Amino acid sequence: MGPNLPKFIDALKKALGPDEVITAREDLLCYSYDATPDLPRVVPVAVVTPSATAEVQEVVRLAGRYGVPVYPRGAGTNLSGGSIPTVPGLVLSTLKMNRILEVDPDNLLAVVQPGVVIDRLNETVAPHGLTYPPDPGTVATATIGGSVAECSGGLRGLKYGVTRDYVMGLEVVLADGRVARFGGRTVKNVTAYDLVRLFTGSEGTLGIITEATVRLIPAPAARKTLLAAFSTLTGAGDAVRLIVRSRVVPATLEIMDRVTIETVESYARAGLPVGAEAVLLIEVDGVPEAVEREAETVAGIVRRCGGELRTAADDHEREQLWAARRAALPALARVSPTTILEDATVPRSRLTDMLLALHGIAEEYDLTIGTFGHAGDGNLHPTILTDARDQEEMERVRLAVGAIFRAALSLGGTLTGEHGIGLAKKRFLPLEMGEEGVWVVRAIKRALDPRDLLNPGKLIPAAPAAGADGEVDPG
Amino acid sequence: MGPNLPKFIDALKKALGPDEVITAREDLLCYSYDATPDLPRVVPVAVVTPSATAEVQEVVRLAGRYGVPVYPRGAGTNLSGGSIPTVPGLVLSTLKMNRILEVDPDNLLAVVQPGVVIDRLNETVAPHGLTYPPDPGTVATATIGGSVAECSGGLRGLKYGVTRDYVMGLEVVLADGRVARFGGRTVKNVTAYDLVRLFTGSEGTLGIITEATVRLIPAPAARKTLLAAFSTLTGAGDAVRLIVRSRVVPATLEIMDRVTIETVESYARAGLPVGAEAVLLIEVDGVPEAVEREAETVAGIVRRCGGELRTAADDHEREQLWAARRAALPALARVSPTTILEDATVPRSRLTDMLLALHGIAEEYDLTIGTFGHAGDGNLHPTILTDARDQEEMERVRLAVGAIFRAALSLGGTLTGEHGIGLAKKRFLPLEMGEEGVWVVRAIKRALDPRDLLNPGKLIPAAPAAGADGEVDPG
Repeated sequence: MGPNLPKFIDALKKALGPDEVITAREDLLCYSYDATPDLPRVVPVAVVTPSATAEVQEVVRLAGRYGVPVYPRGAGTNLSGGSIPTVPGLVLSTLKMNRILEVDPDNLLAVVQPGVVIDRLNETVAPHGLTYPPDPGTVATATIGGSVAECSGGLRGLKYGVTRDYVMGLEVVLADGRVARFGGRTVKNVTAYDLVRLFTGSEGTLGIITEATVRLIPAPAARKTLLAAFSTLTGAGDAVRLIVRSRVVPATLEIMDRVTIETVESYARAGLPVGAEAVLLIEVDGVPEAVEREAETVAGIVRRCGGELRTAADDHEREQLWAARRAALPALARVSPTTILEDATVPRSRLTDMLLALHGIAEEYDLTIGTFGHAGDGNLHPTILTDARDQEEMERVRLAVGAIFRAALSLGGTLTGEHGIGLAKKRFLPLEMGEEGVWVVRAIKRALDPRDLLNPGKLIPAAPAAGADGEVDPG
Repeated sequence: MGPNLPKFIDALKKALGPDEVITAREDLLCYSYDATPDLPRVVPVAVVTPSATAEVQEVVRLAGRYGVPVYPRGAGTNLSGGSIPTVPGLVLSTLKMNRILEVDPDNLLAVVQPGVVIDRLNETVAPHGLTYPPDPGTVATATIGGSVAECSGGLRGLKYGVTRDYVMGLEVVLADGRVARFGGRTVKNVTAYDLVRLFTGSEGTLGIITEATVRLIPAPAARKTLLAAFSTLTGAGDAVRLIVRSRVVPATLEIMDRVTIETVESYARAGLPVGAEAVLLIEVDGVPEAVEREAETVAGIVRRCGGELRTAADDHEREQLWAARRAALPALARVSPTTILEDATVPRSRLTDMLLALHGIAEEYDLTIGTFGHAGDGNLHPTILTDARDQEEMERVRLAVGAIFRAALSLGGTLTGEHGIGLAKKRFLPLEMGEEGVWVVRAIKRALDPRDLLNPGKLIPAAPAAGADGEVDPG
């Protein structure tokens, strides 16, 4: 016998007020999706939109009492299925907890609720000359809570790091409804285990983030954007390697391959060099003098590697180039009904090898794969253009995805640089972490959420052995 | 009945060879100490010095079989008792695992064994124009393994962060003797929980680090050191706050108070301004043009806050100033038989409040306290000059230490910025983390080391309630 759902929903309405409990079937449908394609869809039994930590506690306690799983959710921009239900349960949306509680320029930090959109935080701190660097592609909609839960990356990882580097403190509601606070407002803190970083990237499986204290940095005073077109992948890969070696650390160092360039160009007409095998989009930032010097170093390397160079003459041209890069995913998504976006990441020096491996995989499985991503981080987004209705092709897609992960791992890489494991990649986890690593992950999950109530079915393969969770065998 | 120690030691000698097992009483005595004063001394039953991961596994398995606790140890520079035994057991020294396995300038990383001394890593990567930024005061002796286990800080935290920001991958031997590997060689990795950072700073309680992959950065091309003398603490505190606000991020921003200045000067004759209430020692680094500009900004702020300025004219003068700063602890230690060095850390903007609180505490408990530390991080090292043989004074010292922590916490700070909890501060843990936070810490420890074999008695208060572990009540 399952939980008594009508009684549970009544209890929720009593605790939160009816306006914060959504139960209409047509509304609930939306919450069986996030931005990840090709996953099973489970409609939640209800969605709650609490507006305070105490309400989150109340929800988690009620869910525990009735044995109903809780799926925390921000803006739903997740790309690994992290925010969608696996079995019928309750979606907890943080979107009403959207206040910026404090901006503290003396301590270079801000305190925010989880539903704050990243862009809005940046708009709020900009007048102080400050910035919050983590910038996933969806900064205009993604929330701090979601991006902390996923440890989002973005375009500036090479110089500025990722979300984990900017979380100083967290308030979380634990699986039993208690509130814990980790870290705080000091730049140094080694009190006991690093629970701030354990919960950052825990994908909602260990607790629900109800407040975050994030580090800000002075916004760079100057920046310069360069576009480099290459007639070979190897030329682009060499340039990336030499730039990293040159002691210049660009703020962004992005790559787009031929398929992506052509698709973006026919979609956005940004003036990308159609016909090139790859382009690099490079931005250096910092104090003006350093920016000039670093741009020269980068330009020299690009030329030595056979690249053709264009420099953004003004802010308008700069914006146009970055708009083209940000259009990569939407442009690719327009070409075909289904877009499978992957996230395989390799050590930077193996970038060319990974690009060549992706070409081979596209050929082997007879698929169209456009690749773009954060070349400076070795973080590529191979994007398979397909159609979920074509069963035969989808089978090849799934095999290709497995091949992509195995290629990344064999080059010393990882399953996911910034999108998370979620539902989409959990079956591959043992390939990267081994039985021992998965055992540690599972032991921590069991210790902190013994009844598996928080975002169940995510991140951890169901059985100790790889491929034993009823999904396609990765081997 | 305790473990059968003679059989255990025989088994160790058989597994490792007799040269890697130390049992002579006079040798073992040294291992009942680290750099922390005023702690109970327990002599280990043996010390092993394995030279490979497989040997560490063998040791941990044997320890498990015989039920003997294992205390991992690097160079023993720990300042919170993290590396000394609490009950008779086995010390596992990593000093023979001291090979730099790889320097990879293409990926800006190095792979090292735990016994590598930090300075040696830096000497090895310097010819590549690279540097490993974390620099605890003891870089000349402290090991990578120990500093990762403690998540050491150092003088460059303000701009460059601390150890956790530079660990990309770890190999650890778990409590049951299995080997797990976390993270790797990619700059982005969000595969499952952030176990790299959970184990970094876990003080040897969750596993034994047998290999670390660490991030390197390009060494700064230029730097400039300034000394600023202030006639009031408030002036120095204001200058720190305004520098942080100014968008300049100095590599180091150190403070020494009057007691420290006078003691260092009489010890080292570095030309510090005796009579000043505080000095700030500031270094900016980066590309030459930026360094000049930032030094000017800092100088302007110092003057506005009433500080008197001296700039290091050349490398020799620069070295002299930094030698004076690094002499702070040894100089203070020379003045009195016992030196109680604390580590309370506050948000940067509360630095003046904390300095004034320390003055008040010194007065209230009639103690001499010299304070120096990393002002830019809000990370102060109040140092109580005392004599462990004077029971009455030591009682006042212990009360003062409690008062220091309560002051730091009430200013929004933390028990420890960089020295760890260890044995010395575990009774205070609930004051910072609350019952809920301590519960999470304990749950993780139990999940990963259910028999409490790895560095037992550290980091976690013995009983759920504060002050219930038989030590002085912190309240």
